[in-house]
Amino acid sequence: MSSPTFSDEPSRVAQIVKSFLGGQTGAIVGPESEPLTRLVIGGDRKDDCAAYEVYRPVTIVVGTDYVRGPKFALYELGLLSNFDIGYYVVAANVSDIAAMGATPLGVLTVVRYPNDLDDESFEQIMAGIHQAVADFGTLNVGGDIGQAERIILSATAFGLCEQGKVLSRSGSRPGDLLCVTGPCGVLGAAVAYFPNREERGWKLSADTEHELIESWRRPVARVAEGCLLARKPYASACQDTSDGLKATIEQLAESSGVGFEVLRANVPVVNPVREVAALIGADPLALALSASADFQLAFTIRPDDLEACSNEFANNGLDFCVLGHAVGSAEGISLLREDGARSALPGVAWRHQKSDIGSLVVDAQVDEKA
Amino acid sequence: MSSPTFSDEPSRVAQIVKSFLGGQTGAIVGPESEPLTRLVIGGDRKDDCAAYEVYRPVTIVVGTDYVRGPKFALYELGLLSNFDIGYYVVAANVSDIAAMGATPLGVLTVVRYPNDLDDESFEQIMAGIHQAVADFGTLNVGGDIGQAERIILSATAFGLCEQGKVLSRSGSRPGDLLCVTGPCGVLGAAVAYFPNREERGWKLSADTEHELIESWRRPVARVAEGCLLARKPYASACQDTSDGLKATIEQLAESSGVGFEVLRANVPVVNPVREVAALIGADPLALALSASADFQLAFTIRPDDLEACSNEFANNGLDFCVLGHAVGSAEGISLLREDGARSALPGVAWRHQKSDIGSLVVDAQVDEKA
Repeated sequence: MSSPTFSDEPSRVAQIVKSFLGGQTGAIVGPESEPLTRLVIGGDRKDDCAAYEVYRPVTIVVGTDYVRGPKFALYELGLLSNFDIGYYVVAANVSDIAAMGATPLGVLTVVRYPNDLDDESFEQIMAGIHQAVADFGTLNVGGDIGQAERIILSATAFGLCEQGKVLSRSGSRPGDLLCVTGPCGVLGAAVAYFPNREERGWKLSADTEHELIESWRRPVARVAEGCLLARKPYASACQDTSDGLKATIEQLAESSGVGFEVLRANVPVVNPVREVAALIGADPLALALSASADFQLAFTIRPDDLEACSNEFANNGLDFCVLGHAVGSAEGISLLREDGARSALPGVAWRHQKSDIGSLVVDAQVDEKA
Repeated sequence: MSSPTFSDEPSRVAQIVKSFLGGQTGAIVGPESEPLTRLVIGGDRKDDCAAYEVYRPVTIVVGTDYVRGPKFALYELGLLSNFDIGYYVVAANVSDIAAMGATPLGVLTVVRYPNDLDDESFEQIMAGIHQAVADFGTLNVGGDIGQAERIILSATAFGLCEQGKVLSRSGSRPGDLLCVTGPCGVLGAAVAYFPNREERGWKLSADTEHELIESWRRPVARVAEGCLLARKPYASACQDTSDGLKATIEQLAESSGVGFEVLRANVPVVNPVREVAALIGADPLALALSASADFQLAFTIRPDDLEACSNEFANNGLDFCVLGHAVGSAEGISLLREDGARSALPGVAWRHQKSDIGSLVVDAQVDEKA
């Protein structure tokens, strides 16, 4: 067994980063016959920036997310690998682009690491980044590497959509249907479960544990869904659910100036969420709605578009479900139960601050080991 | 005196960040009569991303830089304020855009901070960011804020230039003149001086100390120079000097496949660099060429363009000087002295790694207080 190596930054750029970025200059984004853009200076060129030629009027979409915090509890428990956290930072950033309905052009990544991260571990982070951009149909076109006190991952994703087609959070109107591309809460359930598993003597089945951890290991940025929602456009508003479904619904409501009525029976609650909810003594619905860095898209559409939108999703092998509908802002956000009773949305919205987190998901989720 | 307040992230977004981003949606970039682009979703909209409509075929330029490391020694010494480091992270990123010849469209910032950073200090960081984007003619259109173990600043800058006009490091040809927009080494001199001042009993004049620290407090991203060099284009290659002038010349040589002959008499060495060099017992020229996060632009132009380029710089109140010229790659990089003697370029190139730093600037520069 060879001992680990710790190359300096220029060597890592020359030997490891280069192998992932090689040959990308010249890449076409969009169909060859009518390219949307061409990467004229890629990460392989070691310039100060990447550069893309754009061939027609477009809307540029750009966003940035730092990834550090509770999710890393699973990394420090050994449940997420270096590859996995590289994959995650890309998914988190591409998801923001997808939520705006844009086709991703590329991702820039900041990868900072402590002295004791060896070359192989560094290469695994870069490999995870590379796998994710490939899976989401885009490129890592450079960024920044170097030392820090501990692992720091941040990225910027950028993309294009047709002019006038960019999706935002602010277009929902009363009567619009509130939809989501899939079940939420699985990532939150994972951080409620794993860090406490041994101490509490919890043991879920291997299959359930696999589903829980896979939600973190291979999160899916909903690029195809976002592009489809923007193209017609179908969506009057759209946002990813990276703060949890409850927080997302609240933010759509605030930005659009509407309220929402959510039908309890319509909120998808998958088995891993049910099983963790049973262990922690929580309402499964509350766990499904709570703080959880899922990358589903929550969006609103006009009722008249439901059939066409459903068909177009199905024709592309995609899916969504209707949660409820927008109401006037004065009505606020409510949950309508099967028996006709109405209540506030249960769950704990992610507030990015320990002191704000209530009692649900929670001890585990903020268990950031400093 | 009121005690400091420590609001949570949503409150800081709502109360502090909002005050800086307010009203930017709708901003035009470029002349009103022929706008280059319009910010259709700004940071004030709290969407997942910012979005710009682009009205004609362009080249998009995008880059990212994390700012943490030796430069923060001056922050921890109390010589740089929270405002200053906010300003710096923007300058560092806009400089990369300027080096490519692009007009900046915007900056996204990541601002992470420890629990003990109060609201006023956070506001000062944001105010520094805001002042810098204003000074460089662009906008901060959002990003990411939240907690971390210590202050972490990172940003992404993006901009546009006309198709075919983007500048890179790789276009220098033998015979091209090597130029720089101003003197280098001042920021490196500052980190060689201040952290060691007390221990060594050094005392430069108040004016010199002011010049040294101002280089860090208000670094200038050379936006006008970069745009001018790209427009004709005058520059066959361009790069900012953020790794120090020696490293920049080496990188231009490597990317372009040329060598350079630098005339010793032509390298500008300003007084603060001379004075610090005398204190540390270094060759002033070596200090001027060494690791130093200056944001000058180093570039090459064809000799035939020198007069026109000089005139256009002068007409715009800008300046540059000729350092030497490109030669064949086999000749490498050399310094030609006034007496005709030839040597390697002196100085220590910044390698982003402690173990690589030699004996010059250097103890001070890597004095990162973990």
